[in-house]
Amino acid sequence: MSDLPKSVCITEEGPREGFQIEKGPIPTARKIELIDALSRTGLDHIQIASFVNPKLVPGMADADQVVQGIAPRPGVAYTALWLNEKGFERALKHANRLALAGTIQLCTSEKFLKRNQNRTMEQQLSGQHAIVALYEAHGVPVKRGSVMAAFGCNFEGDIAVERVVAIVEKILDVAKEHSVTLQYVSLADTMAWATPLAVKRVVGALRERWPDLEIALHLHDTRGMAIANACAGLEMGVTRFDASVAGLGGCPFAGHAGAAGNVCTEDLVFMCREMGIETGIDLDALIECAQLAEVVVGHPLPGSVMKGGTLEKFRA
Amino acid sequence: MSDLPKSVCITEEGPREGFQIEKGPIPTARKIELIDALSRTGLDHIQIASFVNPKLVPGMADADQVVQGIAPRPGVAYTALWLNEKGFERALKHANRLALAGTIQLCTSEKFLKRNQNRTMEQQLSGQHAIVALYEAHGVPVKRGSVMAAFGCNFEGDIAVERVVAIVEKILDVAKEHSVTLQYVSLADTMAWATPLAVKRVVGALRERWPDLEIALHLHDTRGMAIANACAGLEMGVTRFDASVAGLGGCPFAGHAGAAGNVCTEDLVFMCREMGIETGIDLDALIECAQLAEVVVGHPLPGSVMKGGTLEKFRA
Repeated sequence: MSDLPKSVCITEEGPREGFQIEKGPIPTARKIELIDALSRTGLDHIQIASFVNPKLVPGMADADQVVQGIAPRPGVAYTALWLNEKGFERALKHANRLALAGTIQLCTSEKFLKRNQNRTMEQQLSGQHAIVALYEAHGVPVKRGSVMAAFGCNFEGDIAVERVVAIVEKILDVAKEHSVTLQYVSLADTMAWATPLAVKRVVGALRERWPDLEIALHLHDTRGMAIANACAGLEMGVTRFDASVAGLGGCPFAGHAGAAGNVCTEDLVFMCREMGIETGIDLDALIECAQLAEVVVGHPLPGSVMKGGTLEKFRA
Repeated sequence: MSDLPKSVCITEEGPREGFQIEKGPIPTARKIELIDALSRTGLDHIQIASFVNPKLVPGMADADQVVQGIAPRPGVAYTALWLNEKGFERALKHANRLALAGTIQLCTSEKFLKRNQNRTMEQQLSGQHAIVALYEAHGVPVKRGSVMAAFGCNFEGDIAVERVVAIVEKILDVAKEHSVTLQYVSLADTMAWATPLAVKRVVGALRERWPDLEIALHLHDTRGMAIANACAGLEMGVTRFDASVAGLGGCPFAGHAGAAGNVCTEDLVFMCREMGIETGIDLDALIECAQLAEVVVGHPLPGSVMKGGTLEKFRA
């Protein structure tokens, strides 16, 4: 484990991942309460909303009110998600409180693209050129590359490592063409196909090709592998992770094969802390947020450390 | 990950871990139903009962009936747990259906021993000599060493790696004195202190000292680390794991800091299969057992793959 990083950067995605999928309506004030509590834990990146069609995602219908309702905390970057130009324009109206940044996003799976966005790979690629131009026109920096379905796809099956390398190359080409320097490229395990071995193989292949490329991981926990996959990432020196407080973001207890949320933030922070990796996050305060999240959504959430507790009291 | 083993041996502990901790009474017939279903999955080691004081552990009051009620399947070793001579004598009555084997068990933590068994380390050690003699007198083979609290203790805090090495040495000394050759030594993360880094350090230290010693892991999931810890074990070449179907064995949804069960069997089997490690277990049949386990205990259980499903159908 000699490659374990000294510190990591965690982006909290619970509010966005969670509120968009919860079935019951959640009062806007409670969403804001959770976001404000999260902002007091030391988390410095929190994704708080997505600007999407409220008819398709009713849980995000109050995205504007949420963004305007929070008490912005200095040092915290509040981010949002959008899927098209219309969503981006909604986000632009909150440029005073959101840390707006563009992403160049491609997908490894032609079938997934077709099904979800009715696009071919080529259309997706040209769309990225267009959106980067749009970001440039609005003075919004482009910081991130993102690979969807980096480890496997429900519609296309296993994804070869070479395909991921090729997609990252395309992302870097788009960036280069627009004279953009990406801060990092994120690998999304969109449909929860990753295992620790796969994480090591894919990250290893990217490292071999681009030794200085910073890599981030976005890991869903549908098959219980997220914390092990995060650990595999840490062992490969990955220093950026998306995570979801209490494991918000899916319906793991619904009894159907529903997708689960991202790796649980407080479980990830616990693991990092116990392995000597700095996160800058107050774990006790984060656990209180996880417990608050259960109250806010009104049902149990899958996080473990929020139930099992930390080890500090036993060391005292 | 060059040290990943080609195959692993998994001992299913769900029936014992689970039924001893569940609050509500579970009909004996349903316990038997689950055990018989587990025996048809390819699992070849199933721990089905513990012979303990029924006043203290009412869930095990029907241990004799459970053992006599199952339909023993050829090739499956049904095992049981006992904590003292009285329990062992109860187990002996089932020598026709149980695979009886003795364990030399020591604990890293003096305070835990004092609290749980009102014994000192020295008393524990001499007790092991006595019980090995008892096993010998009854012709019961002694196959296993076991280290309790191998990664940390709620009463003593962190446990130094050197302490674990010293405890394993004592176990091997007891075995040697009785001319017993242990098959393996199991490291129990009794109070869920382990992290992947700790697993690698402890297993690595034991490997360095005894290169040919087979090591097993017994990992509780109270803090959500069990699957990552199991993966760390696999990467160190560990080939024996205890596991618990559906994650039976704790009350993770009770809202208190209760201990969780062992690493979830089907999640572990899924991880192994996806990483090319043979388990000999039919994952689909095991998932059906996990779903049955939820019905038997009457509440949701924490396993993930039982909800998220396998990847096979997407590969077809």
